[in-house]
Amino acid sequence: MPIRLNATQPDFEQQFVALLGSKRESSQEVGDIVTTIIADVKSRGDQAVAELTNKFDAAGVSPDTLRFTPEQIETAAARTDPKVRDALQFAHDRIRAHHEKQKPVDHIYQDDLGVTLGTRWSAIEAVGIYVPGGLASYPSSVLMNAIPAKVAGVERIAMAVPTPNGEISPAILAAAQIAGVSEIYRIGGAQAIAALAFGTNCIARVDKIVGPGNAFVAAAKRQVFGTVGIDMIAGPSEVLVIADHTANPAWVAADLIAQAEHGGGAQSILVTTHPPLADAVMAEMGRQIALLPRQSIAREGWEDFGAILTVPTLGVAVQLANRIASEHVELAVENPKALMGDIRHAGAIFLGHHTPEAIGDYVGGSNHVLPTARSARFASGLGVLDFVKRTSVLGCDPGSLAALADAAVTIAEAEQLDGHGRSISIRLNR
Amino acid sequence: MPIRLNATQPDFEQQFVALLGSKRESSQEVGDIVTTIIADVKSRGDQAVAELTNKFDAAGVSPDTLRFTPEQIETAAARTDPKVRDALQFAHDRIRAHHEKQKPVDHIYQDDLGVTLGTRWSAIEAVGIYVPGGLASYPSSVLMNAIPAKVAGVERIAMAVPTPNGEISPAILAAAQIAGVSEIYRIGGAQAIAALAFGTNCIARVDKIVGPGNAFVAAAKRQVFGTVGIDMIAGPSEVLVIADHTANPAWVAADLIAQAEHGGGAQSILVTTHPPLADAVMAEMGRQIALLPRQSIAREGWEDFGAILTVPTLGVAVQLANRIASEHVELAVENPKALMGDIRHAGAIFLGHHTPEAIGDYVGGSNHVLPTARSARFASGLGVLDFVKRTSVLGCDPGSLAALADAAVTIAEAEQLDGHGRSISIRLNR
Repeated sequence: MPIRLNATQPDFEQQFVALLGSKRESSQEVGDIVTTIIADVKSRGDQAVAELTNKFDAAGVSPDTLRFTPEQIETAAARTDPKVRDALQFAHDRIRAHHEKQKPVDHIYQDDLGVTLGTRWSAIEAVGIYVPGGLASYPSSVLMNAIPAKVAGVERIAMAVPTPNGEISPAILAAAQIAGVSEIYRIGGAQAIAALAFGTNCIARVDKIVGPGNAFVAAAKRQVFGTVGIDMIAGPSEVLVIADHTANPAWVAADLIAQAEHGGGAQSILVTTHPPLADAVMAEMGRQIALLPRQSIAREGWEDFGAILTVPTLGVAVQLANRIASEHVELAVENPKALMGDIRHAGAIFLGHHTPEAIGDYVGGSNHVLPTARSARFASGLGVLDFVKRTSVLGCDPGSLAALADAAVTIAEAEQLDGHGRSISIRLNR
Repeated sequence: MPIRLNATQPDFEQQFVALLGSKRESSQEVGDIVTTIIADVKSRGDQAVAELTNKFDAAGVSPDTLRFTPEQIETAAARTDPKVRDALQFAHDRIRAHHEKQKPVDHIYQDDLGVTLGTRWSAIEAVGIYVPGGLASYPSSVLMNAIPAKVAGVERIAMAVPTPNGEISPAILAAAQIAGVSEIYRIGGAQAIAALAFGTNCIARVDKIVGPGNAFVAAAKRQVFGTVGIDMIAGPSEVLVIADHTANPAWVAADLIAQAEHGGGAQSILVTTHPPLADAVMAEMGRQIALLPRQSIAREGWEDFGAILTVPTLGVAVQLANRIASEHVELAVENPKALMGDIRHAGAIFLGHHTPEAIGDYVGGSNHVLPTARSARFASGLGVLDFVKRTSVLGCDPGSLAALADAAVTIAEAEQLDGHGRSISIRLNR
């Protein structure tokens, strides 16, 4: 059964801390295996990648067939239901339009001493996108990872997607084609991450790797961090719905179910100021889960990780939300915009009764790759900024150098870096 | 002896690739030791931190004396040479002024379907700053790490600095005081990173940890990544000077020496279109290194890792610079602004003959924490953006939800996430 807590209970704090600390992932210790796989790919290249791919995915590949040909991509995309293709194109266009607004602009200026200072942005040259295979292989995630890279101006996007038993959803390749990804490899796991990070004969190395994956993928990303950039280490998905007396229990329940059906530790939490809503949502959960074709995943997710917290005020709801720092926060309240400003830690905020989280997963325009497992305390969702980097610019002329010199030389000498000081004073005719 | 290459030699590409791939750090395998230390700190808290600190740093601390008292900070700051204090204050004010311009602004808008979309920025609540002890304990680095956090609005900045044999440079504490850091612990190594990431009785956990450190610190940051955010894994410092016939060989040599004197694998590379400059710089290196009080570090750094590359054109120089992706790139050329646009991968660019890199280390105003070891291909220098995070905002009303619904439900069903589709369709009276 889901946990039910009331913030006015004397043991609430203790129980809430337990909820916060509860593990939803089996933290498989795969670091050593991954270290071996990475070393193997570094030394034997494509041959190792192909062998490991056949071992783990039964993919039936050889070093020559790791990459999808243009014809294979074309054929798969053409096999995709036109209605799905159109929907993906619609999603693409909206996601692209929103991300275009995230492009940073250079800013170079002169300060009052005449020093030129500034920031110049440039795109990362080559990016690897990891797309999980099997159940969690989502075409929408292909769009969400590839579009910000495209908008940023990344020249090369290499996508890795495992093909268990040699199979892949055509919609994955259709989404890649729509997003403009033409370099696609049928590889997965730590071997895919190693190939992207270090390069092989047929896979040129990239500069950054993004995208979610299983424990092996996560461990491999952690190990190659520094050789390449990585995005966050993604955990199970989660939603927190803050609801008041104006919320519709059926709609709230539908949103909690949408999260729980991800399985794999996905968590749905309702925080409400209105106790009757808590009961009504509980009843709706049972009724609606029974209507789902794949009801067992949602039911187990809700029973294992679900929670309903009753609170005296929306102020308390916000405090708890900030401690939970959820990936998704829905504000199913009368005045969501007034509450929004108080939500400090959240991957994304969904405003009001007519914004189910699932809209953000697909066609809202914002990115659905968001920080999980309380990492919204320090991390952001994926965006254009993840595919660009800043170069700072500094310029002095003789006058401004002279104005800065004394302080710089003083600090250099205090740090016993005399060569630093000398590189400044040698330019001054003193 | 430093490497000398000429881009027109037939074996240049091969030699250049060797230079690119050369290791400048001993990659000490400390992962297992660090795992043990982290587990110890998690289970025994302050007691473990104190024991490990005494074991590694001979710091003579107890669990009660891990934190510097306000009086200790005040006393140390007062002992700092007033000239150094003033220089640090001057540096602080310039760094602060520049970083103020990096603050991102919220952007929330309605698109043509009436969907509310946007980005809201908020500061990370608590940040840990690691400051190395001993030789590489630089007050300027305290400023460079703390000021962007302050400007971002971080409420709590906890600084960890090891005190080998119980000693610390007063200027470190003075810099912390100037930057507004009041929470300072005399701890270092993996135990400091673990204490900051997981918290102990006397050290509250933080949300993100930044700052350079030795192999133990780097491994610990890698392991706690996800529990907290981290900045990059810093490697040895490096400079690449692009110089033409207008460059002053004595000034160029001084800049190469300033980099080499960091030791620990620091690298200085000169790329020049003007062969006589290469010879003149070589001669200046010998002459100027001999003038340094601590000449052996600079000499060894230059002889072990230095390089001079002669190229036919500035275009070739830029190509090589982009492949090297150096932390610092100096443009000691006649028209640096014209060349700047072609430098794509660099932590920072220094314009013209009167901008020695050392100015950027201290008082230029830009940050001196920059990506090393070719990571400028994908990473940026430290800035205000490292201490804030984005929350995306999405809002629909009944009309805009209806406009988005069909495509979203289509994708949800294609992904076999029927609950996602239902959470949308339940809100439409269809």
